[in-house]
Amino acid sequence: MTPIRVTVWGENRHEKTDPPVAARYPDGMHAAIASGIRSHLGQGAVVRTATLDEPEHGLTEDMLAATDVLTWWGHIAHDDVDDAVVERVHRHVLSGMGLLVLHSGHFSKIFIKLMGTTCSLQWRNEHDRELVWTVDPTHPIAEGVPHPVELGEHEMYGEFFDIPAPDELIFISSFTGGEVFRSGATFRRGHGKVFYFSPGDQAYPIYHNEHVQRILANAVRWARTTRPDRTLPQVRRAT
Amino acid sequence: MTPIRVTVWGENRHEKTDPPVAARYPDGMHAAIASGIRSHLGQGAVVRTATLDEPEHGLTEDMLAATDVLTWWGHIAHDDVDDAVVERVHRHVLSGMGLLVLHSGHFSKIFIKLMGTTCSLQWRNEHDRELVWTVDPTHPIAEGVPHPVELGEHEMYGEFFDIPAPDELIFISSFTGGEVFRSGATFRRGHGKVFYFSPGDQAYPIYHNEHVQRILANAVRWARTTRPDRTLPQVRRAT
Amino acid sequence: MTPIRVTVWGENRHEKTDPPVAARYPDGMHAAIASGIRSHLGQGAVVRTATLDEPEHGLTEDMLAATDVLTWWGHIAHDDVDDAVVERVHRHVLSGMGLLVLHSGHFSKIFIKLMGTTCSLQWRNEHDRELVWTVDPTHPIAEGVPHPVELGEHEMYGEFFDIPAPDELIFISSFTGGEVFRSGATFRRGHGKVFYFSPGDQAYPIYHNEHVQRILANAVRWARTTRPDRTLPQVRRAT
Amino acid sequence: MTPIRVTVWGENRHEKTDPPVAARYPDGMHAAIASGIRSHLGQGAVVRTATLDEPEHGLTEDMLAATDVLTWWGHIAHDDVDDAVVERVHRHVLSGMGLLVLHSGHFSKIFIKLMGTTCSLQWRNEHDRELVWTVDPTHPIAEGVPHPVELGEHEMYGEFFDIPAPDELIFISSFTGGEVFRSGATFRRGHGKVFYFSPGDQAYPIYHNEHVQRILANAVRWARTTRPDRTLPQVRRAT
Repeated sequence: MTPIRVTVWGENRHEKTDPPVAARYPDGMHAAIASGIRSHLGQGAVVRTATLDEPEHGLTEDMLAATDVLTWWGHIAHDDVDDAVVERVHRHVLSGMGLLVLHSGHFSKIFIKLMGTTCSLQWRNEHDRELVWTVDPTHPIAEGVPHPVELGEHEMYGEFFDIPAPDELIFISSFTGGEVFRSGATFRRGHGKVFYFSPGDQAYPIYHNEHVQRILANAVRWARTTRPDRTLPQVRRAT
Repeated sequence: MTPIRVTVWGENRHEKTDPPVAARYPDGMHAAIASGIRSHLGQGAVVRTATLDEPEHGLTEDMLAATDVLTWWGHIAHDDVDDAVVERVHRHVLSGMGLLVLHSGHFSKIFIKLMGTTCSLQWRNEHDRELVWTVDPTHPIAEGVPHPVELGEHEMYGEFFDIPAPDELIFISSFTGGEVFRSGATFRRGHGKVFYFSPGDQAYPIYHNEHVQRILANAVRWARTTRPDRTLPQVRRAT
Repeated sequence: MTPIRVTVWGENRHEKTDPPVAARYPDGMHAAIASGIRSHLGQGAVVRTATLDEPEHGLTEDMLAATDVLTWWGHIAHDDVDDAVVERVHRHVLSGMGLLVLHSGHFSKIFIKLMGTTCSLQWRNEHDRELVWTVDPTHPIAEGVPHPVELGEHEMYGEFFDIPAPDELIFISSFTGGEVFRSGATFRRGHGKVFYFSPGDQAYPIYHNEHVQRILANAVRWARTTRPDRTLPQVRRAT
Repeated sequence: MTPIRVTVWGENRHEKTDPPVAARYPDGMHAAIASGIRSHLGQGAVVRTATLDEPEHGLTEDMLAATDVLTWWGHIAHDDVDDAVVERVHRHVLSGMGLLVLHSGHFSKIFIKLMGTTCSLQWRNEHDRELVWTVDPTHPIAEGVPHPVELGEHEMYGEFFDIPAPDELIFISSFTGGEVFRSGATFRRGHGKVFYFSPGDQAYPIYHNEHVQRILANAVRWARTTRPDRTLPQVRRAT
């Protein structure tokens, strides 16, 4: 099988203005995410990165057409993402491009557009311990992952998480405060496959965690569609 | 229990320009839909109608705030629906208003916004016989409905229907040409409940069919949420 | 609508041999469960009880035929339940009787038979605090319930819970130890509706909790099928 | 990746007593099924067969322990399958062995045990044309399959099919008589993955159809679990 063409998209703003984030992720969060995927997939993937401040956010038509799976991390600048680019990404997802939406990406324009809901949730940033439990142990995204994955400190994301009922619920997290969260879930949209995964706040070194890296690599493999064409489902008059 | 406040929304354009449609539905398709719901729910519902050419399409903030369940039929004028009204309806659905999307409403702005997909499908308007089979016989929307419901002539809607996997698949239709369609399906979005039902083309007297009327009445009952408040799921900082 | 005919089935063994349980539930756990349902449904339900040590465990053909919804609590004596009675209950569920399976009933013969899996889980009985979070806020079973329901002390039930993916996941619990559990879930089987709800260990006064009582009453209402007949889905040769 | 170890199980009774079936499948239906899988998976699979009249039906503990995916075709002799073997197969499925249940296998002991329902359906054996439509076009089991697959003549299987709501509904069939059927569906049970596929009556040469062969080969690939161990989900006391 040919290598999976992955584009890791990062907002890359905290890294420029927040020294602790820059220290944690000296090349940007996107670089750490890309590195984790590369380390797990090796020759099985070709991983590029793109960021908000590039022209067209680095997500040109050509770039997307050459992308099997896109990962999306954004937080403080969702509104700066151009609507035309969001439309383009949406069209590519429905045409068969895989999409991984990460952490605060729950409030990105593209995720809200794909879900149809507010995508709101409860949160608290006070160094809770997060435990990520697998509730779908045969799912390929959970392959090789401990039960639970322990994240020593992380931002709390809690229910109610306003998303459609997932097609598959893979992970549920708990937090020190007793909250729970559907932290790993899949959704099929058009010809594309979407995975949301909540761990990954900029204030913690989550993307250096080997198990998180494994989950993202598994998800990249899962999200590549088996359809070689890249076509939008279309209305057609039957004869 | 207080009566369900139903608003039946109709595009009401074919009825003005297409004499056979006007003959079939002399008071408009919305009037026939409303009448069918009334006949089944009696004192259990207060049914009003609203149409595209009214100010704000008849869907003011006050009107929606006083609506438990909205039904939506549109076809040739989806683009004439004001985006601000679509946003308003969307907010009310996510806040707990039930929504029934009918037939060609699959291409309405509100349905596409709630689904996140193209909502495209295959079609052919050649008087196919449609059989509507129940595949979820305990669902309240299927209560009292024959298996199958036979519609002597109808427009064919066929797969692939580009929607998210439904929360509940209740009806599957077949057509003379051999096509199949997921013709009755539910989706929860935010605090609201959505039912899509495909029978109902303007060129056939579908809304005079007693079984179709029963299904719509059942769906109105199902779609009223049990939440007395009308609130949007909201992001909240936990303590 | 006629009152819902509810039969609350209890194993009723701990109550006879374990003084703290007897003190907590002087008339048996089944009596407390029945009382909670009655207090919420009032004239809307007729609630009877039956226990393991009655002839045919109190679940004769006539008794089941006159039952709209059966609730099941068992723990130390699953093996003492007669296989013929299990077959009978199974037939009635598939014919349209609602079933609520409570707590340690996850290992009952009837639940395993309906699920097809081991129904195993993780557990620890060390007075964890349990928080029951609603993840499907429009579901009628969650109506009127705080988010979360706090149970000061309870046995821990944790994932992986070996059940089929639920049709609807309504509640997720967390525990002091950080574990999570899908604590409220629905399953349709044949013409019947099944709800599993995990709170309810004999060592804690869970069935005296008003919110637990509300959930069980809501579930009774939900589990009554709309089908007036009581028929098994049957193979039939079509013509 | 190591080759998938497939065991194709066939009842192999019609072939011995019904000359037209023997003519259609001179080496048995199981041989044709095995041949189709081999032709699509090549070096990617090692395919063996086993039949009812072998000792332990050819499904010894060793045989199952060395099987990644088992396919099951039975029809007139479900009752002749030893309950101990059914228990053994059930244990292996829940431990991670994939299972494909074919056509009349809907009434096999193993399928009923895994589903928990009657698994009944409607049928008519009168040479209907069957069209198999894909409703989940991104699913790997549907890869490379025309929409629809046309089966010139086949037995009709119709709804209501008494199964739990599938985890994924991939195919829906229609028949000349206008009936519909959920003809391809997946279910996760324990650590195992199950696929039901309805085409395959002994009175028609269905397993010689290249598209049916492709679907079965795709399903074999899908059903192999990613878990290298073969363990039953087990109750465990947490500390």
